[in-house]
Amino acid sequence: MFEARLQEVQTAVQAELDAAIARLPEGGLRDAMAYAAQGGKRLRAFLVLESAALFGISEAQALPAAAAVEALHAYSLVHDDMPCMDDDDLRRGLPTVHVKWDEAMAVLVGDALQTLAFDLCCTPSLGPAERRIELVAALARASGAEGMVLGQALDIAAESAPTPLTLPEITRLQAGKTGALIRFSAEAGAILAGTDRAPLATYADALGLAFQIADDILDVEGDEAATGKRVGKDADAGKATFVSLLGLDAAKSRAAELVEAAESALAPYGAAAQNLRDAARFVIARRN
Amino acid sequence: MFEARLQEVQTAVQAELDAAIARLPEGGLRDAMAYAAQGGKRLRAFLVLESAALFGISEAQALPAAAAVEALHAYSLVHDDMPCMDDDDLRRGLPTVHVKWDEAMAVLVGDALQTLAFDLCCTPSLGPAERRIELVAALARASGAEGMVLGQALDIAAESAPTPLTLPEITRLQAGKTGALIRFSAEAGAILAGTDRAPLATYADALGLAFQIADDILDVEGDEAATGKRVGKDADAGKATFVSLLGLDAAKSRAAELVEAAESALAPYGAAAQNLRDAARFVIARRN
Repeated sequence: MFEARLQEVQTAVQAELDAAIARLPEGGLRDAMAYAAQGGKRLRAFLVLESAALFGISEAQALPAAAAVEALHAYSLVHDDMPCMDDDDLRRGLPTVHVKWDEAMAVLVGDALQTLAFDLCCTPSLGPAERRIELVAALARASGAEGMVLGQALDIAAESAPTPLTLPEITRLQAGKTGALIRFSAEAGAILAGTDRAPLATYADALGLAFQIADDILDVEGDEAATGKRVGKDADAGKATFVSLLGLDAAKSRAAELVEAAESALAPYGAAAQNLRDAARFVIARRN
Repeated sequence: MFEARLQEVQTAVQAELDAAIARLPEGGLRDAMAYAAQGGKRLRAFLVLESAALFGISEAQALPAAAAVEALHAYSLVHDDMPCMDDDDLRRGLPTVHVKWDEAMAVLVGDALQTLAFDLCCTPSLGPAERRIELVAALARASGAEGMVLGQALDIAAESAPTPLTLPEITRLQAGKTGALIRFSAEAGAILAGTDRAPLATYADALGLAFQIADDILDVEGDEAATGKRVGKDADAGKATFVSLLGLDAAKSRAAELVEAAESALAPYGAAAQNLRDAARFVIARRN
């Protein structure tokens, strides 16, 4: 059920992203943007569409916001994979942009995908201007120097720090690097509906942390063919992770507790939130 | 008169940018953003504030839009200066971000300054949500894969092309790389006022092209101490420029014609547009 729904989301958001990119002037930049914007789990898009559905907002209406958050996420991956950052040559099973093209193209593709994300938030079908400007502001707060980019900067700084990060430090890092955009995605429906975001924020914060812990577990236990990226990288680099700080068993327990907390936060929405509950189960059961 | 006005704009927009950056979480990323956002001519901010003034929009009201375009411009410079792009070690007379920090910081500072630009466009004091979302959409179109970033990509591609660019190609490149953001800046007042942008677009397109031709002239005739960047770089790299394509004298004539065209476009605004007329004169008379 959940995986079928995720598959539907993947198809719909890919079509929306492809259409947005197809409207850009043709050429190498557009080709590389399309390449970087393909594939992925589309968990963030799923959260946007499912939170929108809670408030009776149709998929057709909410799709530009789902595509926006995926464009934003894709930009962060392209920049994060660059040699001066995490230096990854494989992403979603394919060569990264700086490998397939070059570093200059990776900088520009990331830059243009970020811009596209904000442009998509302006799409008139999303609703009244008041809601759309709120969406832009929330996306900016989630993705910039108080959210995702801050998390990336803390992550890079940790690499050259004399001692590994502590649990509070790595929790703050995660809250920025992956948590903020997951929170934005889950709140998007409430933003578009102009209603209280608090239950969705609680859900998303637990989900986001569980997601990161699961990522750290996959880095230890994962299968390169399934994850589409190199495995054991964090451990090789001597990076502190939730697994290195908590131990593998405690990390798994903590992720499971967080999934329960995420599910509980959805109580106000009743049965309508079943897909979101299933998503929380999925993040710790996934193999990629 | 014009230079005194530009100086006022510099002071006001710097204060607005500093205040916006000071609201971000403290740390190395914020410090590097503040560093990258200092200095510069602030011509784009000037255009925002002067075009706003044409429609009775106060400086206090329009300042967040002026700061937004300067944050956007600053991001583009940080990324453009990186080794994989133009590889500049000096900007505005100071070491570039990747020299003073490192390449990872340059990627992140640029990313976060772009986000900040869109965040600033959401500032409630700019006016009704309808105007602000229009501003966001216009900034996205001007700065992304159909504007500035496209121009950058064409510029990078030209470096490895077998033959130098032709005049139509370099004109298209410039229209993206510097022209689109200058047009956005000049249109910003009309966007905030919800009125016809056409005369300001005509003004800005002529101004932007004159500005780029003047830049190419400065690359040949400029003084490193005054420009704060290396001189003769384009010629050394065998890059086509307006000077290499037209010759120095014809480039100067063309720039002068464009300044007249820019001035003529302002006729509908009468005496209120005097500062904008003076700006057009300034771009071809400047020494940096």
